[in-house]
Order: sequence, then structure tokens, then C-alpha cells
Amino acid sequence: MGIRLIYASPERDADLLYWSRVFTCDCFLAFEVDGRRRAISNVLDIDELRRNSSFDEVSLPGDWTQEKNPSVADLIQCICEKFPRDPLQLPANFPAYLLLELQERRLPFSVTDGAFLPERSVKSPGEMDQICRACAIISGAFERVRSLLAAAEIVDGFLHYNNKILTSEWVRSEIAGVCFAGGAIAKETIVSCGEQAAYPHNRGSGALRAGEFIVVDVFPRLLESGYYGDMTRTFLRGTPSKKQVKMYDAVRAVQARAIGAIRAGKNGKEIHENNVKMFADMGYPSTDSTGFFHSTGHGVGLDLHESPSIGSRDYTLQTGEIVTVEPGLYYPEMGGVRIEDVAVVRENGAELLSNFSYDWVI
Amino acid sequence: MGIRLIYASPERDADLLYWSRVFTCDCFLAFEVDGRRRAISNVLDIDELRRNSSFDEVSLPGDWTQEKNPSVADLIQCICEKFPRDPLQLPANFPAYLLLELQERRLPFSVTDGAFLPERSVKSPGEMDQICRACAIISGAFERVRSLLAAAEIVDGFLHYNNKILTSEWVRSEIAGVCFAGGAIAKETIVSCGEQAAYPHNRGSGALRAGEFIVVDVFPRLLESGYYGDMTRTFLRGTPSKKQVKMYDAVRAVQARAIGAIRAGKNGKEIHENNVKMFADMGYPSTDSTGFFHSTGHGVGLDLHESPSIGSRDYTLQTGEIVTVEPGLYYPEMGGVRIEDVAVVRENGAELLSNFSYDWVI
Repeated sequence: MGIRLIYASPERDADLLYWSRVFTCDCFLAFEVDGRRRAISNVLDIDELRRNSSFDEVSLPGDWTQEKNPSVADLIQCICEKFPRDPLQLPANFPAYLLLELQERRLPFSVTDGAFLPERSVKSPGEMDQICRACAIISGAFERVRSLLAAAEIVDGFLHYNNKILTSEWVRSEIAGVCFAGGAIAKETIVSCGEQAAYPHNRGSGALRAGEFIVVDVFPRLLESGYYGDMTRTFLRGTPSKKQVKMYDAVRAVQARAIGAIRAGKNGKEIHENNVKMFADMGYPSTDSTGFFHSTGHGVGLDLHESPSIGSRDYTLQTGEIVTVEPGLYYPEMGGVRIEDVAVVRENGAELLSNFSYDWVI
Repeated sequence: MGIRLIYASPERDADLLYWSRVFTCDCFLAFEVDGRRRAISNVLDIDELRRNSSFDEVSLPGDWTQEKNPSVADLIQCICEKFPRDPLQLPANFPAYLLLELQERRLPFSVTDGAFLPERSVKSPGEMDQICRACAIISGAFERVRSLLAAAEIVDGFLHYNNKILTSEWVRSEIAGVCFAGGAIAKETIVSCGEQAAYPHNRGSGALRAGEFIVVDVFPRLLESGYYGDMTRTFLRGTPSKKQVKMYDAVRAVQARAIGAIRAGKNGKEIHENNVKMFADMGYPSTDSTGFFHSTGHGVGLDLHESPSIGSRDYTLQTGEIVTVEPGLYYPEMGGVRIEDVAVVRENGAELLSNFSYDWVI
């Protein structure tokens, strides 16, 4: 079987948070053997972990060794001595300095390639509920964006709100406020207009203009549980050109078909390659940095980007997995369009957890 | 010299954020050789890193190798081939899976024991300004707590505000709101009352009571820059007992003396051991889990807890370092008292960056 072992902080490591279900700041050792999850905590955090975490057992270093100030490697050695049948299984991000110590002590280990807790990709109803809640918060933020854009006046091609130029930064801060009020933190929100939107991760800055695509990508994390939502809508204030309408419709058509193609047993790579091909057939070719050049989607949960990926690698979707579906098109001369929803993989199709209108012209 | 190399995300790694000065979500390679800092980014983040990061050079994998989809280890090998004089210097938290690949390829490396970028502990005026700003936000939050406690009515020993029982959760959420309005995220804030406060990291829950210590420890992170503030005050609503007054005064006296003892060249261990002794002399002995059983302070910056530590290990304080000074006393039958400020180490003393009254009886 092996001893799955993590040394990290739940604040920074989603695998450990998945086990602990409680945020603590300092790093601690956690491991699972024979289905029992245990933590070894310093004296400062032990009370919090004992009261509020999901571990089956929380102990102090002194429960494992007589040594006064045992190192983390000392404690891992104690664990290996207590469970000598089982080699250690370590996550890919296990700290290098500890790995070297395990090598020196000749403790048996293997480092996992890929997801350390693959069971994380299939979500429980409770987890779905959390992600759905995060998406509902995003819908509220989109509603706020729509109302800002709708109330804006167009002056010399720029959007003005309350007689001030409406900027990416302003809209981003409004979105953060809506999310915070809902119990989630929205960081790095993308509000990118015009050419900025041709770079998918460009956060956007400065004045918003009429007649240009405005990509709004929001991915807040629930403060209490740590689950993420992730949705994107593209808006345009004013009157779109025919080319803009065609480009938006292409992205929406590809997204709708991709959502329709999702079901358990389907290969994500096939869905992704179909999207690329469908774009090309509609007159939107892709290169390394234009057209549709990112993956179709990714798992979302305690990490914003987690397994599975719907992209260029084979992956058979499983019932209960939660993925984003977010095709986009990017050309510097046009800007960008991306539309992103979150779906649960079901036996016979996809069930959307996100819900917001695709009306984009305001 | 060596090539200092990081593979991480600035969202989760303060060393990388110290180099990049911009938050991006995905992991990327960054390294420093001959004083020049370079990043190798995927195509999605390259625009953001080129425009807004502090790197001297941002390149794509294709600038380093002809291979179509090079792995991270492939890229590190390219770096080693380009700078063959220099062995790799890796941080303690470097990912284990990559370390194994470097070993397999027999690339020369060493893993740093302790702080990877020791220069982080001495802060620039700009950094001091950020930490000072975060502390000012905390002062605003404390002001809010004071006014809530002052306005509360005492009914059967419990605090009531607007005819509802005032809880730890409520106060925590008010604090989060004040911090958010100031541009910072306050997570895991401690508002612990009575026996809960005897456990330093207990976040606190449920009804707040009159006549008991209420420990309020707030450590928000500025959204834009990622710098933390960290302050604690202990309040009591109602009339304290003589024992409570004596305990509070002891903590404040120790804190004042510790702040007075800070200056460049001083050994942090000496300050810490003096604190333990001064408590014992005043009739407050310590064990592993009662009395004063945590360290006196820690560095604060892009990490909440960073180098240096003022505790049981030798450390010579340097001009420009920023540390918390946070003695406390904890006894289950009394609850807890902790008072925490943030100070810059100067040649001839400490300069406080935090500023809030020590009046505690409300």
C-alpha cells in the first residue's frame, strides 16, 4: 500500500487541505496508512487541528520520539519504523531538503508523478455545492459588471461612469467587493479590453473602450472552505462589428458543443481537438500564440487548476469530475473572446454548476 | 557564485514573488546568475511577466531549446549548459520530483539549508512602507473591535450588540471587512475569548464574554504587493480582576522591555531568554504548553513568518530587519494575553511600524 506522506501547510497545499479541512499557517507532517489519516503538529496548532480538522489522529512530536527537538526527518524515520511494511509515497512538490535527508537515511520512498491524491478529481456532493456557491458569487459579480457597463456613458469612445473614466482596475475592484461580500476572495481578476484581451492571462489595465471586447475572468476562492469557482464572460459596450459578432458566436458555438460532448468515458483530448478543428473550419486558425492556443478546460476544486485537464493529453473523464469549459479566440487586431463555465461530468452528459447569461452586447 | 534557481508560483512562493513582484498563478522557472534575474514562462503568462515583473529577462522555452515540449528538467539542463561554471543553488522547498530528475541527469546542485534569499530579511524603505501600511490597516480594525466591544451590552455575562450575542465569528468578519476596505485580506484572524485564548493559535468561536481576556491577532496581506502586517491586542470588556490586571501588565512590561532591547548586533536568543526569565521572576513560570511557550517574534514581509526568528536559537539582529515582538502568557484557568507589535531593527534601537493604544479595559 505505502504511506502517503505530506509535509506542508494547508494554506499553501491543496492536498493537505483536502485531508485537514482546516487552514493552519505553519507546515506540519501528515500521513495516511491503512486508510487512517494522522497529523503530527507542533504545540501551537495542535488544539486547532484536534478540534476542527478531519484527521483521525493528531499527535505531538513527543508522542513519537523521546528526542527533545526532533527534526522532521527524525519524525519521518519514526513513522517508517512504526510501519516497516510500507514505503513512503511522496507528492511531486515534497520539499527537496527533506528528500535529501530521506535518501541519506536510506528510507524507502517513491515520488508520485502527477496528482498525489487522484481521488480529489471526483467531487462529493458537498464539494459540488461549494464550487456551485463560488460560481453563484461570480454570477453576482458579472451582474455588477453588466450594470456598470450599461450605466456607462460613451465619451470619445471611452466608457465613463459617474463622470469618471471607467477602468479595468475600477471594475476589478467592484468585482472583488461583490465576491468578498459573498464570502470569497477574488484575486488577479481579469478585466481586459481591446488588444490586452488578446493575451489570455493579461489582467487588463487602464480605460475601458466602447466597441471592443472586454474579457472578464473571475476565479474567487471561498474563505471558509477554500474551494474555487471559475467563470469568464466577454462583454462589449456599444455596437459590435460583424467580425466581432462572428468571432463571439464562434466561441459560444464551440463552447456549447464542447459542453454537449462531455460525459463519463469520453476522452478530453478528443473534445479539445474537436474544438481546435471546429474553430479552424469556421475560419479561425491557431498558432502558438493566436487563435485558440490554450487548453479547453481544467479541473477546479481546492486548487484553481487541478486534475483533470481537457487539452492535448489523453484523459478519460469520470463521473463526478468538475471541469471548466473555456474555449477562446485571440488575435491582436481583434482582441479576445473567452467564455467559461463549470460543469460536472455525469454518466450521460455535463451538468453546469455555473449559470449566467451569454448576452454580451450592452 | 552559483545559479540560484526557483520553480514555483509567486502566488505560493514568497522568494519568487520577491523576484517577480507580480502575482501569476502557474509555476514557472526563474533563476539568477551574475546578478541578472531571468524567467522562463509559458506563452500564457509571458506578456504579464514582460510588462509587469521585475525580471531582467523573460523568455519562452523555445528561446532555450529546439525541443517542442521541453520538460522543466530539460530547461534546467539548458541553463546548466549555458552557464557551465556555476552549480545550481536550490531552495529547501524545491519540488522533489525535479530534484530526482536533476540527480538522474547528474546536474550539479546544492539545496539551501534555511532562507534561500537571506537578503529578504533586511527590508528596503519601500518594503517598510508596505508593512507599515498593513499595520495601519490593522489599527483600523482594532478601532472597530474597540467600538464594538464598547457599544456591547452585558447580559448574563455575555456581550450583546444590537440585541444579538456578539461572537468571535462576528468580530472576525468585521475585521475582515475593515481590512478588505483597506486593500488587504485578513484570513484566519484570531478572536479568542476565555479559555480558548489559552491556546495561542485557537482562532476562537462562539459567544464573547465580559470579564474575560479577548485576544485579537490580525495579520492581513496587502492584495497588491503581498506584504503582511501582524499585530495583536488583548481586550477585556467589563471589570478585570486583580489577577487579570497583573497578568496583562506583566505581558506589556515584558514586551516594552523586549522592544527596548532590540538593536542591530543584539542576539535574538538573549532577548527571548530574558523574556522567559522576566516572566518567571514575576511569578509566571512556563512549561511546554503553559506560560510563555512560543518564540518572542519573527520576521514579517512577503511571508507572514520569515527570517529572522527571535527565539531559542542564536541570531544576530541586523539593521533594517523587521520583526514582530509578541510575548504572551497562557494558562487554561486564566485564558491568554498576547501583545504584538512590529519593529524595524535600527543601529541604536527599535522603531515601531505598528501603532495602537495598549488600553485594554473597555
